[in-house]
Amino acid sequence: MSETVRVDLGARSYPIEIGPGLIDRVGPRVAAVHSARHAVVITDTTVGSLYGSRVADSLATAGIRAEALTVPPGEASKSWDVLGDLLDRILAFGIDRKTPVIALGGGVVGDLAGFAAASALRGVPLVHVPTTLLAQVDSAVGGKTGINSRHGKNLIGAFHQPSLVLMDTESLSTLPMRQRRAGYAEVVKYALIDRPDFLALLEREGDRVVSGDADAVARAIGESVRAKAAIVAADERESGRRALLNLGHTFGHALEAEAGYGDSLLHGEAVAIGMVMAFDLSVRLGLCPAEDAERVRRHLAACGLPTRPPAGLGGTSRRLLDHMAKDKKAEVGRLTLVLVRGIGRAFVSKAVDPATVIDLLDDALARAA
Amino acid sequence: MSETVRVDLGARSYPIEIGPGLIDRVGPRVAAVHSARHAVVITDTTVGSLYGSRVADSLATAGIRAEALTVPPGEASKSWDVLGDLLDRILAFGIDRKTPVIALGGGVVGDLAGFAAASALRGVPLVHVPTTLLAQVDSAVGGKTGINSRHGKNLIGAFHQPSLVLMDTESLSTLPMRQRRAGYAEVVKYALIDRPDFLALLEREGDRVVSGDADAVARAIGESVRAKAAIVAADERESGRRALLNLGHTFGHALEAEAGYGDSLLHGEAVAIGMVMAFDLSVRLGLCPAEDAERVRRHLAACGLPTRPPAGLGGTSRRLLDHMAKDKKAEVGRLTLVLVRGIGRAFVSKAVDPATVIDLLDDALARAA
Repeated sequence: MSETVRVDLGARSYPIEIGPGLIDRVGPRVAAVHSARHAVVITDTTVGSLYGSRVADSLATAGIRAEALTVPPGEASKSWDVLGDLLDRILAFGIDRKTPVIALGGGVVGDLAGFAAASALRGVPLVHVPTTLLAQVDSAVGGKTGINSRHGKNLIGAFHQPSLVLMDTESLSTLPMRQRRAGYAEVVKYALIDRPDFLALLEREGDRVVSGDADAVARAIGESVRAKAAIVAADERESGRRALLNLGHTFGHALEAEAGYGDSLLHGEAVAIGMVMAFDLSVRLGLCPAEDAERVRRHLAACGLPTRPPAGLGGTSRRLLDHMAKDKKAEVGRLTLVLVRGIGRAFVSKAVDPATVIDLLDDALARAA
Repeated sequence: MSETVRVDLGARSYPIEIGPGLIDRVGPRVAAVHSARHAVVITDTTVGSLYGSRVADSLATAGIRAEALTVPPGEASKSWDVLGDLLDRILAFGIDRKTPVIALGGGVVGDLAGFAAASALRGVPLVHVPTTLLAQVDSAVGGKTGINSRHGKNLIGAFHQPSLVLMDTESLSTLPMRQRRAGYAEVVKYALIDRPDFLALLEREGDRVVSGDADAVARAIGESVRAKAAIVAADERESGRRALLNLGHTFGHALEAEAGYGDSLLHGEAVAIGMVMAFDLSVRLGLCPAEDAERVRRHLAACGLPTRPPAGLGGTSRRLLDHMAKDKKAEVGRLTLVLVRGIGRAFVSKAVDPATVIDLLDDALARAA
């Protein structure tokens, strides 16, 4: 059972196909969208060893000559040096402006390969084949690409919409449980932004999504992708509504920065904690009923996600606030936060007193688990 | 006497102001377009020593705090390493998404700073203040940005339209005569593409443009900018008509590649020779009257531009053809050329037999001057 969601961006519109077995149909699908006889596949060594040959076979069968370029797995590959090397290898292959770049992997591969596709020859077509839950419900949709700088994450990049996104729901079965849980935090986020009914569904079957039940996974991905596609279509370049997608992320990025972006705190885990903080702050500001914050905390915990900063985090509230003020969505010297008036009622605020945030962070750090 | 030409690109439209003394009005003009209180000025050491303090004073007077970042002059600055270092310094300054990057200099600075502006925080505003004739009539208009790769020129970059372009016609007075002549080749190009009346004007006053007569220069820049703006507005991302701007450039790039992109053959000089070759090839193919080719050759020579490959070039017709086939506008394995049916009647052809091109190149190399 497959589903197609269309991201509506005028001349840059594209389909997202969601279903089992799509890894083996990359070749025919790319051939249907692009007339090119060549393609570049970018993946990491982990995903490459799992799916590289299946994608290569599928491309070959469709008559597409493909070059596979591999980077090391992990966040460290989103670097200036790795990107420069990757672009050099792409150009050495001999592409033209119609040669698609196929990003096969999780968020790191998608962001890196996406920026490479945006920059090679000032932009070549991009096909996302996301293989993690996080990449499927978040980074493969919406056109954000980029790499990290020593000044922060994703500070260098481009908006570059894909021409096609293929989400094989079976590829999630090879994902470790902790990674699936972390990706699930972004699924919950869509419910909290503007889809309260979706939270009710997730409360019923969230554990089945995390444990990998095929139907529940497909439903969760489908609804998440529809939610993100609607927001991106309304505000492609984040001048307004798209900022809502940062719910939990300003707090979360500060926690990740303090934890060093490693395995001690995964992005989705940081987002789960950050969403709890955003709800708690909204309660303190008298904006949101306390029971809504409690409901969010309960659901995330029930699905095995953290709701408090990790005990070993170190850091002070002042340091966390500094990280938050440096977030690239912020204006210089001004704190921008996504707050809530309740579940499904998120909004952007630039009016929060930093002292209130410091108090919240102090209390959260005191309860670190 | 100032003139404003508008580039019509919907939400990405922008004004190009042309006139004397604009260097001293950068601050007020940027303040009128952007509400930002901060800006980053990118320039090279040569242009910085000429105009850096005047631009800084103008920004300070307008209440804009500016950081000046300098790169070495010359094509070598369009490199991965220089760009990475530049982005690091931009991010260290502490920009937000509304902080404009001001590119003060010639084509190298414009292309490099433009790509940095496109990539920092996935895109910040860009203001071009081109100080060479070549940059004013070509690279500062139309949104192409980029750097070089070891596989070729401008192979890595982005389309990133400026929000404002300020062309101070007085800044050309500090330019060496040879640089002005080279820039003038791009002026002639617009006449040859689709403005035959413009060639008649240039035949009357081209020598005054090259020697720096203020009124003649302003007229030539104005007409060139209007010509380019019209083509860019019709085809921003070069899927069709914009390819006409490559008249003389496929041949020219091959000559530059063979000459090593140095001072022995300037870009504009290569374009002048390339335009003569494009006309000669069109004559051989029976497309263009021989007297039109002769008229082009005569006008370029009268303005001091070369019309034959330089004697020291070395290289063979086969090597030049290989460079041409690798041009990034080409499809893999297919030669794309801009040909003419006469002056002002350029068109794109993918149907030229490489053997005919080889013959033309052999004859041109035999006549190398």
